[in-house]
Amino acid sequence: MTTARYDVVAIGNAIVDIIGRCDEQFLVTHGATKGAMTLVDADRVASLYASMGPAVETSGGSAANTIAGLASFGGNAAFIGKVADDEFGKIFRHDINAIGVKFDSPAIAGGDPTGRCLILVTPDGERTMNTYLGISTDLDSTQVDPAIIRDSAIVYLEGYLFDKPAAKAAFREAVTIANAAGRQVALTLSDGFCVGRHRAEFLDLIRSGIAILFANETEIMSLYETSSFEEAAQRAAADTKLAALTRSEKGSVILSDGQSISVPVAPVAKVVDSTGAGDLYAAGFLFGVSRGFDLEKSGRLASLAAAEIISHVGARPATSLADLAKKAGLLT
Amino acid sequence: MTTARYDVVAIGNAIVDIIGRCDEQFLVTHGATKGAMTLVDADRVASLYASMGPAVETSGGSAANTIAGLASFGGNAAFIGKVADDEFGKIFRHDINAIGVKFDSPAIAGGDPTGRCLILVTPDGERTMNTYLGISTDLDSTQVDPAIIRDSAIVYLEGYLFDKPAAKAAFREAVTIANAAGRQVALTLSDGFCVGRHRAEFLDLIRSGIAILFANETEIMSLYETSSFEEAAQRAAADTKLAALTRSEKGSVILSDGQSISVPVAPVAKVVDSTGAGDLYAAGFLFGVSRGFDLEKSGRLASLAAAEIISHVGARPATSLADLAKKAGLLT
Repeated sequence: MTTARYDVVAIGNAIVDIIGRCDEQFLVTHGATKGAMTLVDADRVASLYASMGPAVETSGGSAANTIAGLASFGGNAAFIGKVADDEFGKIFRHDINAIGVKFDSPAIAGGDPTGRCLILVTPDGERTMNTYLGISTDLDSTQVDPAIIRDSAIVYLEGYLFDKPAAKAAFREAVTIANAAGRQVALTLSDGFCVGRHRAEFLDLIRSGIAILFANETEIMSLYETSSFEEAAQRAAADTKLAALTRSEKGSVILSDGQSISVPVAPVAKVVDSTGAGDLYAAGFLFGVSRGFDLEKSGRLASLAAAEIISHVGARPATSLADLAKKAGLLT
Repeated sequence: MTTARYDVVAIGNAIVDIIGRCDEQFLVTHGATKGAMTLVDADRVASLYASMGPAVETSGGSAANTIAGLASFGGNAAFIGKVADDEFGKIFRHDINAIGVKFDSPAIAGGDPTGRCLILVTPDGERTMNTYLGISTDLDSTQVDPAIIRDSAIVYLEGYLFDKPAAKAAFREAVTIANAAGRQVALTLSDGFCVGRHRAEFLDLIRSGIAILFANETEIMSLYETSSFEEAAQRAAADTKLAALTRSEKGSVILSDGQSISVPVAPVAKVVDSTGAGDLYAAGFLFGVSRGFDLEKSGRLASLAAAEIISHVGARPATSLADLAKKAGLLT
């Protein structure tokens, strides 16, 4: 096995976030499920946008946020995703390239527009997401460059993409190529509803060669259809080499080789916008693992990155995570 | 004179800001003049964008920021400006409508794109602006709806627009209509270089019927070609009914009827991004004047709005200015 050029390549939805503040009543009036990610069609996204307050636009996408975080720690990163030849596609490409991530998936003209996610942030800092996937959901195997997969120590897959047959096939192909090249594959379950829709196939994928699994409490309990987090965690430990399970303010649990390590959250003065907490947790953890740090230190880097992201609006780091980690004594 | 439907209508550039952080060296490398607003062409904006770091997009434009601030105070506001039929035009329209401002200038297809401003924020919070005006600079009299001008207590003109002959003609026409209807006209000088390019015409415009003049130290000293702020202030007081002159951290001076009132800045914990300080100063001041408050109170509202805007990234209010003013005891 040769040295990998990239620490991590991520395959995920290429999304631009449109972030605005709203009160609780707005969510009720518009029938939005607080705290959830809901997939919406072009009409619904247009009508919600017309009703919501002033917004800011910033690049997003779950795995893309993770990979931006990894680059901010100083990792070598690549991203695979589908954008249209439009203004939002240009914004997405600029922002991910500008942080040092290789992203050269071509822009597609004439199809659906670039994906966008309306993020409504309530005064408690909770985010409610309404995502119009646009062209990003049409990712297929032709976008997955085998050379980049083989040249990445870890291939990170975003569960949100796991809805259409072509994307599922692309994921399976990426797992096969990575495993044949001796690379590790990581997967985030992304969303409880997504797990519910594709439980059996997710389990197949996980058992077919996922080394590192990320999930939050809801997702992992949905995957194993149990109301006990402990049971779900044990089963995840049996199915993967390494599982990192997040539990919001209760911190996270990392399971590997019969070990179970609890990692507390890092302190935050005020939760301004919880968007991206899970994405950036994965960034810190993957960075730690890719650098060969132990699981506890990798978990602390994960908590640090999650804390940074929830202290401001937007799901991309507002400051250098490498500098933050140095200040915290986690990097030299 | 009938009661006006709008407290203020503003005529200005319709711009989307693209805001990113950079170090001092980036400005040197790319030959950008720190703290200034530089007009750039489409090629230069593209090459600077390609070089700059990750960014967030948010509606901007000097007079548009002012009018958004006025609406945030609870004022009735309208805006006139030119956008293209593109994604940035849609963002601009959404954000200004969403805060309650009437803006129904049609989107123009087939011409230049919607204007954009690359704002580079250095670690000291100073902003360096590179503006590609796009279609916004082609404003002419056909966009200036006489009915809205007559129905607004104050017409606010953005000096930045005062470059092309058609826009100058539109300004003069707006002044004529407003004065005939017994309305007041306010003008911001916007930019020292712009004043330098059009000094004589600015003076003509001011003397032809500007009631309220906004300028910072550099602009007012350039207008009257003097190195003495006091002399410039005296001459401004002679040329207008009311002049509000800002002096950065030294606060502002309001001149009217032989009076001179000094207003201190409002406290700010940390200057994060100085973009929009002057725009929001004008918002608070115009809101106060339109509500019949005395000049000192209007000045304090102005300082309050400026302090809010420099405490975060972006030049549109992140919180309700009406609520802030209530907390400060300036509104009931």
